[in-house]
Amino acid sequence: MSLPAPKALLFDVFGTVVDWRTSIIRELTEFGKGHGISLDWEGFADQWRGLYQPSMEAVRTGAREWTTLDELHRESLDTLLSDHGVLGLSEEDLVRLNRAWHRLDPWPDTVPGLSRLRRNFILSTLSNGNTALLLNMAKRSALPFDVILGAETARAYKPVPSAYLETARMVGLAPSECMMVAAHNDDLVAATELGLQTAFVCRPTERGPNQTIDLEPNGDWTYSVSSFEELADALQN
Amino acid sequence: MSLPAPKALLFDVFGTVVDWRTSIIRELTEFGKGHGISLDWEGFADQWRGLYQPSMEAVRTGAREWTTLDELHRESLDTLLSDHGVLGLSEEDLVRLNRAWHRLDPWPDTVPGLSRLRRNFILSTLSNGNTALLLNMAKRSALPFDVILGAETARAYKPVPSAYLETARMVGLAPSECMMVAAHNDDLVAATELGLQTAFVCRPTERGPNQTIDLEPNGDWTYSVSSFEELADALQN
Repeated sequence: MSLPAPKALLFDVFGTVVDWRTSIIRELTEFGKGHGISLDWEGFADQWRGLYQPSMEAVRTGAREWTTLDELHRESLDTLLSDHGVLGLSEEDLVRLNRAWHRLDPWPDTVPGLSRLRRNFILSTLSNGNTALLLNMAKRSALPFDVILGAETARAYKPVPSAYLETARMVGLAPSECMMVAAHNDDLVAATELGLQTAFVCRPTERGPNQTIDLEPNGDWTYSVSSFEELADALQN
Repeated sequence: MSLPAPKALLFDVFGTVVDWRTSIIRELTEFGKGHGISLDWEGFADQWRGLYQPSMEAVRTGAREWTTLDELHRESLDTLLSDHGVLGLSEEDLVRLNRAWHRLDPWPDTVPGLSRLRRNFILSTLSNGNTALLLNMAKRSALPFDVILGAETARAYKPVPSAYLETARMVGLAPSECMMVAAHNDDLVAATELGLQTAFVCRPTERGPNQTIDLEPNGDWTYSVSSFEELADALQN
């Protein structure tokens, strides 16, 4: 590596830091049991996440004004429940179920890896999640971030450039002093084009047993690893 | 107390969490020694802080567009150095000296008190400092905040209402679910008018040995204490 070491590591969250799919399936299944609703919750989880990119796209293109991910998740949830004929839930139940996205579990290597990395680097989120979502998630699992920056930072959704550039600016660093850490090659493509360093962390089961994308790095990333602990090994010798 | 317990504690930082005056005098004195410059650095520190409110006022009134505290501190520093006939410093020296505000020491009760409070509450900053300043300060002294929200959150300086309201919104809570913690009565006046709960923490030497204001609570605050540990006692029994 000829680059100087980064000063801050900026983490994608959904899929990279936390195992959203297993967590959402768990939350939906518990909800179903509690309400006597029998559905294919695994499929429901994938459908919910399937609406993630399309819902943000309207904001990215400017067709829709700034809307937080909590709101987008809720709209998608309402749509899917209706599609599946689940009607008549209370507002309180819907709010609680939508906040399942605040209760995602970290991967097993997440906390030990971040704890080691935090000794040498500033650790921030760089996520499409809103701040409250990320904060509640971090608090619940004691994720040792130094600073939590949500999509409100730039009021923009990745891979829109300002999402990356405003985060770097907010932590007081040049893009080249930051390293984007993500399990998604397209996130790293956007980051590297803006001058950030990059680390690919392979999460081959993020999308379940039949995952077909992001099974390996497909770019010339600064580092490619299989866990945050391996990233700590690579960055800290 | 008939109010329900708050869910988040929002901390003023300069004077409340950190002892800015002792720290800035230390930084200036070290700088003077290193550069062979002899000045009344204690007086210089008070003058530098003296320009704090006037510099923000132009932003508050809208006479000036959004400007971070790092930039305002730098302008004030340049003015004062020139006034004192200190000329010809390198840009690198000026940047480093200005960043003295990123290296402020916490009060002795700060870290133990925050550590206890963090078990039961979301801990956030609610400061006129910019995020990078607060982040570097927190990292340097391991201040255990859950989330660091700087003045960029609302692009507004306290006591402008949006500074408080946007911070509550960013942590996902109603104002009444938040408690403003400050050593300054005027900060609590603004917060209570917006529906936040309030805690006054007495810091009788923040402004040095001759401090005349904020020596005692002068409002009907939810709590009035002398340290963060006392606040933890009061809130957690």
